[in-house]
Amino acid sequence: MDMVTTKYIGKKPKLENPILIEGLPGIGNVGKLAVEHLIDKINAVKFAEIYSRDFPPQVFINTDGTVKLVNNEFYYWKSKKKNQRDLILLTGDYQGLSSQGQYDLVEEILNISEKLGCKEMYTLGGYGLGHELEEPKVLCATTDKKLVNTMKKHGAVFKKNEPGGGIVGASGLLLGLGKLRGFQGTCFMGETPGYLVDPKSAKAVLKILMKVTNVEVSLSALEKKAKEIENIAHQLREIESMPKDKAEELKYIG
Amino acid sequence: MDMVTTKYIGKKPKLENPILIEGLPGIGNVGKLAVEHLIDKINAVKFAEIYSRDFPPQVFINTDGTVKLVNNEFYYWKSKKKNQRDLILLTGDYQGLSSQGQYDLVEEILNISEKLGCKEMYTLGGYGLGHELEEPKVLCATTDKKLVNTMKKHGAVFKKNEPGGGIVGASGLLLGLGKLRGFQGTCFMGETPGYLVDPKSAKAVLKILMKVTNVEVSLSALEKKAKEIENIAHQLREIESMPKDKAEELKYIG
Amino acid sequence: MDMVTTKYIGKKPKLENPILIEGLPGIGNVGKLAVEHLIDKINAVKFAEIYSRDFPPQVFINTDGTVKLVNNEFYYWKSKKKNQRDLILLTGDYQGLSSQGQYDLVEEILNISEKLGCKEMYTLGGYGLGHELEEPKVLCATTDKKLVNTMKKHGAVFKKNEPGGGIVGASGLLLGLGKLRGFQGTCFMGETPGYLVDPKSAKAVLKILMKVTNVEVSLSALEKKAKEIENIAHQLREIESMPKDKAEELKYIG
Amino acid sequence: MDMVTTKYIGKKPKLENPILIEGLPGIGNVGKLAVEHLIDKINAVKFAEIYSRDFPPQVFINTDGTVKLVNNEFYYWKSKKKNQRDLILLTGDYQGLSSQGQYDLVEEILNISEKLGCKEMYTLGGYGLGHELEEPKVLCATTDKKLVNTMKKHGAVFKKNEPGGGIVGASGLLLGLGKLRGFQGTCFMGETPGYLVDPKSAKAVLKILMKVTNVEVSLSALEKKAKEIENIAHQLREIESMPKDKAEELKYIG
Repeated sequence: MDMVTTKYIGKKPKLENPILIEGLPGIGNVGKLAVEHLIDKINAVKFAEIYSRDFPPQVFINTDGTVKLVNNEFYYWKSKKKNQRDLILLTGDYQGLSSQGQYDLVEEILNISEKLGCKEMYTLGGYGLGHELEEPKVLCATTDKKLVNTMKKHGAVFKKNEPGGGIVGASGLLLGLGKLRGFQGTCFMGETPGYLVDPKSAKAVLKILMKVTNVEVSLSALEKKAKEIENIAHQLREIESMPKDKAEELKYIG
Repeated sequence: MDMVTTKYIGKKPKLENPILIEGLPGIGNVGKLAVEHLIDKINAVKFAEIYSRDFPPQVFINTDGTVKLVNNEFYYWKSKKKNQRDLILLTGDYQGLSSQGQYDLVEEILNISEKLGCKEMYTLGGYGLGHELEEPKVLCATTDKKLVNTMKKHGAVFKKNEPGGGIVGASGLLLGLGKLRGFQGTCFMGETPGYLVDPKSAKAVLKILMKVTNVEVSLSALEKKAKEIENIAHQLREIESMPKDKAEELKYIG
Repeated sequence: MDMVTTKYIGKKPKLENPILIEGLPGIGNVGKLAVEHLIDKINAVKFAEIYSRDFPPQVFINTDGTVKLVNNEFYYWKSKKKNQRDLILLTGDYQGLSSQGQYDLVEEILNISEKLGCKEMYTLGGYGLGHELEEPKVLCATTDKKLVNTMKKHGAVFKKNEPGGGIVGASGLLLGLGKLRGFQGTCFMGETPGYLVDPKSAKAVLKILMKVTNVEVSLSALEKKAKEIENIAHQLREIESMPKDKAEELKYIG
Repeated sequence: MDMVTTKYIGKKPKLENPILIEGLPGIGNVGKLAVEHLIDKINAVKFAEIYSRDFPPQVFINTDGTVKLVNNEFYYWKSKKKNQRDLILLTGDYQGLSSQGQYDLVEEILNISEKLGCKEMYTLGGYGLGHELEEPKVLCATTDKKLVNTMKKHGAVFKKNEPGGGIVGASGLLLGLGKLRGFQGTCFMGETPGYLVDPKSAKAVLKILMKVTNVEVSLSALEKKAKEIENIAHQLREIESMPKDKAEELKYIG
């Protein structure tokens, strides 16, 4: 058995010069939230599942009581307007657990995308600040210098030496390994405290992605989720600022 | 050397439409206890051993002073009545230590079962609650929606979003990877505190398994073991509620 | 590159029905001390080195300033008397770091031994008690029931359910994987506190090994080392029983 | 995909009897600082990049906003004088993360060097003392006994049993695996406290390397960096010796 296996669902889609958009789990789950929201809003169609021996040996349980082996999932979407492009969308339950698993998974994603004629990509993720913030900015890094100016015009931020540790995980590796194959790509990283899932940061990332792809969707569902998370964060802060006895008690009741 | 090696003992059995029943070590050792009890009571016959380079590099010592390399073991049982089916039973010393080892082991189990004509399975395990409980319920997850109703009729419980983390390990992976090959299967998870081996939970799991397979065995040996464990648990709780000095002393004497 | 590589030094030895004796690093370094002492006393000849990608990426520095890649080393010895047998001796710097590395290493040791006509082995190790002891006994486990009685006659001890965790590492795995290939073998485990290297335990193991192989060597060098270790242990115990301030001071001076 | 992949940039260089000089990240980053300084001063030319699935799945971000997949880099330099030799220089972002990754990487470095006609090497690293020191000495280990005297003449230090743990990582493994292929080599280890990057130790290492290679470069840039680090170290020591409250405050301001 190979490290990574792809199972197509039905026929392979025929796409014209498509763009890959990736959002896997990561800090604040920013990328995953953003791509899942997009898939939902544009009614993208699932066409393949990737399984990896480097994912945890785990099934999730669907609401109907059936199981689902953890995987990554490919969707596609055909453009509706002249100024749009076909899209390949990738999300999933996990990234690879080990370095080797990450490299194998990303090579497979690039293989499949390449076969569908794809040579461009946007990868989405979070940039963990470790503190609260008002309005999340969207940091950016690209495979090509000429893309830097384009992204700046759309509001993406380039900070010298940030992220200082570079980009770790699929969002970075897709750009890095993709560049070696001649892919052009951009990574959007939404600022996030990083403590909780962060729909607000996902929204900020999607706003820029909508500009560069000319694909517009309603963001109200993300806004609603962001409100909910804000309430939870507010409650957690209150508990933390309480005298310890009372905090314990509340947690117990909760 | 391959990651996983199977050594047959004597001839491969000829089975008719057999059902695989798996119980490997895990939380409360529920699955292992249940399958070992069943093997013992129905006099199932060992026909193969699986060795894996992802098991610990370890031998156990038999009571006669000889060694036994850690492994997984396959047994079979031929049905005696019209409403029964042939059985393949799997238990063992370990699951794979790593993700890749788990995937390799489970693929091998499926390969061997498939060659024997098997397309159905029950996987048995525990569901750790982290607290004491009166009567363990048996949670359930399946590969197919239509199996959900059948299992409910036999007393299995489907709780929405439980287990929240899905099923990790061989019991889950067998369903997940099996489903991709067209296997039908059900996982029974006996509730257990998860602190000690739990024959009471194993008994609850076997009760349902007996209903769905029409294979009936006496559970009195498990009941006896459950009593013993209950006594041990009782003693441990007493020690914990003692003043620290006295508890230390008792442990020393014990 | 394979996981494990063997490099022969000069010609392969021609041996008659040789016995493999293994002693790699482990608890109290009992096995390694014993085999190294034996190699030294009988002037065994090195004939091969095993390198493994699962050993640490490390060289040791010889006393002359040159480096030595960490490895395992094979020696041989030709019998001098009728009641003796040719010997293959294995010792080394490390065991494999991972489960897979252990299995690969042990398979290679068995391959090389088999090619030299070997079908019997003694594996040597320590049995950690976690407390001081007077005279170390030598526990024993075998591949075959008939060997149990033989070993008992020579003074080896079989305790029911001990070691409870079986034997972990090369000494156990050689018996386990060897048994699957038709090797006969015995593991001698010298009792040891397990805190320090333990020449006294190594001596106890060698005493029995000398009886079963009819190869006799002086053990005085081991006895001398045992004295030295005893002195160190004595000093450590004194420091531990001192008031903390004084102990710190002594450690600083030392 | 192989564990390790090499991508040549332009044509392979034609070199005459070149010497490999390696300096990868490690304690005090001594080796990496030294080789990077040398590459910079002699205007060595990059000719190949090594990628490994055992490096972290990570890209760094260049100052212009573009990404760079983490790698190791090969440079070459053609000798200018009769008493000099052509050089191959290796530096990079990471060493392999696992034992196997280290062995694979080092084998690849040796393969590439061998194809370019190289049979000699200097590997550079740090020797962590865990305490401050005045003038760092340069410890040494070699593949061949006759090299020991040569290196002593140039001021390298051989201390019996130091480093006690041998040399762990690429600098040691290159010597160890290289020796098995008939490479001759020497490892220079600059003493370093090991707390911070240590340009002073890198300078000491380069001084000896300059003598043995007859390649002379200005070390003033390293001296300047060493001053900066010394200032930082000084400030850290001051903070540590302050009363705790004040120290916290300063860290906060800083």
